[in-house]
Amino acid sequence: MTTPTPSVPCTNPLAKLLWGEERLQRRCEILAAISTNPVFTDPGCNPHSLSRKELWTLRLKQGVELLALKFKLGWSNQQFVDATKIAGDILSLGVNYRIFIRNLEAQMSAAQKAYWIPRAERFEIAGCYAQTELGHGSNVRGIETTATFDPSAEGDEIVINSPSVSSHKYWIGALGVVATHALVIARLIVKGQDLGNHVFLVQVRNLDTHDLMPGVQIYEQGEKGMGTFATMDNGVMAFTNCRIPRANMLAGMVSLGRDGTYRAAKNTKHAYTSMVIIRGLMSEEIGIEVAKAVVIALKYTGFRRQFNAQDGQEKRVIEYASVQNRLFPALARAVAMMLLGREMRARIDNLVNESLEDLHLQTVGAKIWVTEHGVRDVEVARLSCGGHGNMAATGLGALYAQLSPSRTYEGETYVLSQQIGNAVVKHWKNQSESSISALSYLARLRDSTKMSRRLQVVAVDAWSSPHVQAEFLELRAALLAKRHLDDVAAGMDTSYDVFELAMAHADLTYCRALQAQVEQSPNEDRPTLEALANVFALTAIVENLAAFAGTELLSAEDLANLRLAHKDAISVFTRNVDRVVEAFGFTEYELNSVFARSGQTPYDGLLEVAKQSELTDNHFIRPTLLEARSLWKKYSRAKI
Amino acid sequence: MTTPTPSVPCTNPLAKLLWGEERLQRRCEILAAISTNPVFTDPGCNPHSLSRKELWTLRLKQGVELLALKFKLGWSNQQFVDATKIAGDILSLGVNYRIFIRNLEAQMSAAQKAYWIPRAERFEIAGCYAQTELGHGSNVRGIETTATFDPSAEGDEIVINSPSVSSHKYWIGALGVVATHALVIARLIVKGQDLGNHVFLVQVRNLDTHDLMPGVQIYEQGEKGMGTFATMDNGVMAFTNCRIPRANMLAGMVSLGRDGTYRAAKNTKHAYTSMVIIRGLMSEEIGIEVAKAVVIALKYTGFRRQFNAQDGQEKRVIEYASVQNRLFPALARAVAMMLLGREMRARIDNLVNESLEDLHLQTVGAKIWVTEHGVRDVEVARLSCGGHGNMAATGLGALYAQLSPSRTYEGETYVLSQQIGNAVVKHWKNQSESSISALSYLARLRDSTKMSRRLQVVAVDAWSSPHVQAEFLELRAALLAKRHLDDVAAGMDTSYDVFELAMAHADLTYCRALQAQVEQSPNEDRPTLEALANVFALTAIVENLAAFAGTELLSAEDLANLRLAHKDAISVFTRNVDRVVEAFGFTEYELNSVFARSGQTPYDGLLEVAKQSELTDNHFIRPTLLEARSLWKKYSRAKI
Repeated sequence: MTTPTPSVPCTNPLAKLLWGEERLQRRCEILAAISTNPVFTDPGCNPHSLSRKELWTLRLKQGVELLALKFKLGWSNQQFVDATKIAGDILSLGVNYRIFIRNLEAQMSAAQKAYWIPRAERFEIAGCYAQTELGHGSNVRGIETTATFDPSAEGDEIVINSPSVSSHKYWIGALGVVATHALVIARLIVKGQDLGNHVFLVQVRNLDTHDLMPGVQIYEQGEKGMGTFATMDNGVMAFTNCRIPRANMLAGMVSLGRDGTYRAAKNTKHAYTSMVIIRGLMSEEIGIEVAKAVVIALKYTGFRRQFNAQDGQEKRVIEYASVQNRLFPALARAVAMMLLGREMRARIDNLVNESLEDLHLQTVGAKIWVTEHGVRDVEVARLSCGGHGNMAATGLGALYAQLSPSRTYEGETYVLSQQIGNAVVKHWKNQSESSISALSYLARLRDSTKMSRRLQVVAVDAWSSPHVQAEFLELRAALLAKRHLDDVAAGMDTSYDVFELAMAHADLTYCRALQAQVEQSPNEDRPTLEALANVFALTAIVENLAAFAGTELLSAEDLANLRLAHKDAISVFTRNVDRVVEAFGFTEYELNSVFARSGQTPYDGLLEVAKQSELTDNHFIRPTLLEARSLWKKYSRAKI
Repeated sequence: MTTPTPSVPCTNPLAKLLWGEERLQRRCEILAAISTNPVFTDPGCNPHSLSRKELWTLRLKQGVELLALKFKLGWSNQQFVDATKIAGDILSLGVNYRIFIRNLEAQMSAAQKAYWIPRAERFEIAGCYAQTELGHGSNVRGIETTATFDPSAEGDEIVINSPSVSSHKYWIGALGVVATHALVIARLIVKGQDLGNHVFLVQVRNLDTHDLMPGVQIYEQGEKGMGTFATMDNGVMAFTNCRIPRANMLAGMVSLGRDGTYRAAKNTKHAYTSMVIIRGLMSEEIGIEVAKAVVIALKYTGFRRQFNAQDGQEKRVIEYASVQNRLFPALARAVAMMLLGREMRARIDNLVNESLEDLHLQTVGAKIWVTEHGVRDVEVARLSCGGHGNMAATGLGALYAQLSPSRTYEGETYVLSQQIGNAVVKHWKNQSESSISALSYLARLRDSTKMSRRLQVVAVDAWSSPHVQAEFLELRAALLAKRHLDDVAAGMDTSYDVFELAMAHADLTYCRALQAQVEQSPNEDRPTLEALANVFALTAIVENLAAFAGTELLSAEDLANLRLAHKDAISVFTRNVDRVVEAFGFTEYELNSVFARSGQTPYDGLLEVAKQSELTDNHFIRPTLLEARSLWKKYSRAKI
């Protein structure tokens, strides 16, 4: 199609392994298409200096340019979504392709799909997904919006209403300005009977004028904290007798006849598929953002020198344990997020054939783990750059701000953790853990010899065995599962402590997934990936020993060996970091950071930023400053 | 002077204890002065919607109004600084009073003080403090800026130069736009001899025109990440043969004669006093910000309901362990930060009589602990509000963004932690720990019976003994000190692991300081403070058990009792939270959050924000949207 820019490794085997061949191919095509397009490379302003409205407008116009590229170059929906991320924080137009169409595919009848999906594909209509309400987030059963079937002769319609303040739809991405259609989750009421949540396609704006439709009120939600998601028009929506055709109820798994006859498929989870989908996509998406942040930090800490001068030069910051022990595990986690994320994406793309419970549990565990670690790792990338990491032009603040809400959207961490806890209780009671691969630690817990046997990791090297590592993480998960089961039996509120179990559960899942990938990797990359997986696992072990306090499972010698093994793992990985960074192959355009420019040092980059600051020329404020410095004269006799 | 607004508790005994009588008095006066002043209460715009330049300008003008109030009402410097915080994020004008004048006081000769301090007090000159360079932060010895004495007949001047890119002064608050004078840290060179860092007062802008002085180049630094410190004009500065009178070298502890004769006082740490001062002030200042964030979160989580519906109403979010176990310890830590912070402030105000090593170590430990916990606690306040906590109008994002850089400024956490580690090594070797009260754990470490004796906390209640708690935290610090000493002896890079020791060191310091305050508190508030201190200590214990893995100091039963004691402590504190919140007495103006308005619910507040969003009226972008939705027609034959 087009030749990729030379700096992007499109054939490097390790790059193929990290990104996956398909995604890597898409990446190369996208970068080739945008890296010489002035709409992206030369927007004519410093985005950090803009007001929110100005920034939103800039990104929306860039999004429309990407849409033109999609049509022109025949990009797939996923390729367009990839492009909105690669091109920067272009959020609003991605919703139609990332969320809306996926839900149409998952929940519409064949006839509905045939009519609606082409319209959404070509952006003739712009869709969004309206589930959350002001008063109801994770507890979807609490949703108040009603969809009442009107069977009258002149009707055959469904009437949508918002009965209260707390039932306003809220946080609906792309609704505030862009959307013409919304998938609305509402309680279906037929003949006075509440049939629970269903999904309805509601046209919210006129296609020709973009005016609101009758019975629909929409406000854009306002600014988010830390300037994040500024380029998303989250919206608030209320309905007052908004009428839609009966045919607009999504009918992939349910049906509503002309006379109000209602039929539902066995699987009643259909209304919540969207959350499974989005959580499942987050692992890979967040892994990429973490990798970017760590790469930026590696560039800076490889340049910056501080303390311990020898031969006239201070030591490079990246050479300190305090930086290596933070950035290297973060890089290893980013890779794990991407690899397991790709597996989940494949399952989601093939949703109809999936065991929903297993997939649900995997996406829940992954969502918790990826968001908690991802936010921390992006933050650590900033912190390891010291004070200068706080400049907007490093890109590190925006990466944190953007990931930060991920711990609360699509299910808050502690609320979701309870789903892991509940699964533990259920399968423990039913002795059914073998049906869920991630719950292997329950089988261990049934084996009292395995739970009381003192660990015998006789040598430092033994800690680097993938088998020993997975066994150890399994033991930790089993200890925490035991605590959880005891707490539940004692009637305690486990909502806080269960988080630790959920993280241990996911540590084990991610560790095993990464180890499996290493085993399948080509020989030439094997040593690099083994070093990375070793850092991953030993960090997960060494930083989570609290569960072993009060047990006699570990000796002081075990721990001393573990610490040495971890130190060795970091040291070995030091020699592999560059290969991984190279395989990621982020372009300067993507990193968008003064710390990562080939033509200048970070210091020169920071000076350039200062020279362009709008406040450097202070003539606009001089009268005020001179007034401030003479204020004292006015009061001098009295007080000063 | 003026009557305080009724909502501020100015005589409540617990309020006096939390704030200190003097600060509380200042607070009440400030709130009375600004709470009816439209410059503050009705700025005529939504600050979140502004560009950085607009926001900076707004806050600067509010700062000038505060300055007029200072002169008019006879506020002290500290009262003005307090007012800049209470009035919002008005940062730039505070530098002169919070940092510049304090350094003049600490480091000038009597004659210099008599001349300069009055000018700075009345803001006839505007000062800033210029230490950090692009290439040199924590390692102040690496500073490159030179100050060369020119003894020639026509000279008797000092010539300041920036010899390299990395020697540009950087991060200098209030320098970018406002300052007329800077305290510049530079290497004094006399007769070719480098005498190390000294402090020089350099006029950087003309007092009448505000133009730059000859030989001085200044740029405003540009935007910071996450929109934070937008209202501070951090500056970059380079010197080219900038000449200042010899008399402008700060001469409180050193002197330079007309002929170049140099004399220094014994105490050679004089150039770094500023960092001790600022670190010392951070504990109280950050404690107040954390308290604000927690109070906002308590208001929202007391309103919000989620899951477990009974009698038609879901359970209040604050009733879940997952929220209590995060917010209550955060509130307890905020109080500890304020109380120990006040003790440190008193020592700093009396700096000349202080043992610098002890104060230095206390401020270092406090700075690490307060910033690490403070940032996390403010973040937790946001997270415990779920998704809605991400709206800018809640105020929670800005509080995080503002505290976030505190972990890297005035000494990065890991770099500073090494100072604790170094003190441990030094006093262990010298057997001199008794000279530093915070190092009591080293004495414990010398007593092998105390280090090997199994803990015998026989009952749940025993864990609530302040003595047992302090002993436990001392034991933990001793275990980590032992590990550090072993690591140092083995020649390991301790820069990562020493952080855990530093936190354990500070946990102990803060726990003891809080317990001492409880003992001195009036009877009526004693139960509340005891409950708070109990939550503080037991949380510090229960969340930091990793150091006990691989030891036999704790049994499973000890831990089970500990967990129950912690649970009880949270439960008892539940009944005391309102008293503490009331004693803080933050006004709605200060909290500045849609979650904390007496006249409306959080949901109504969020709807009001949406109704005012600039993007709700989308006419400005409709042509682009309509174009986007018809783009497909252009490409339809080819691809779609």
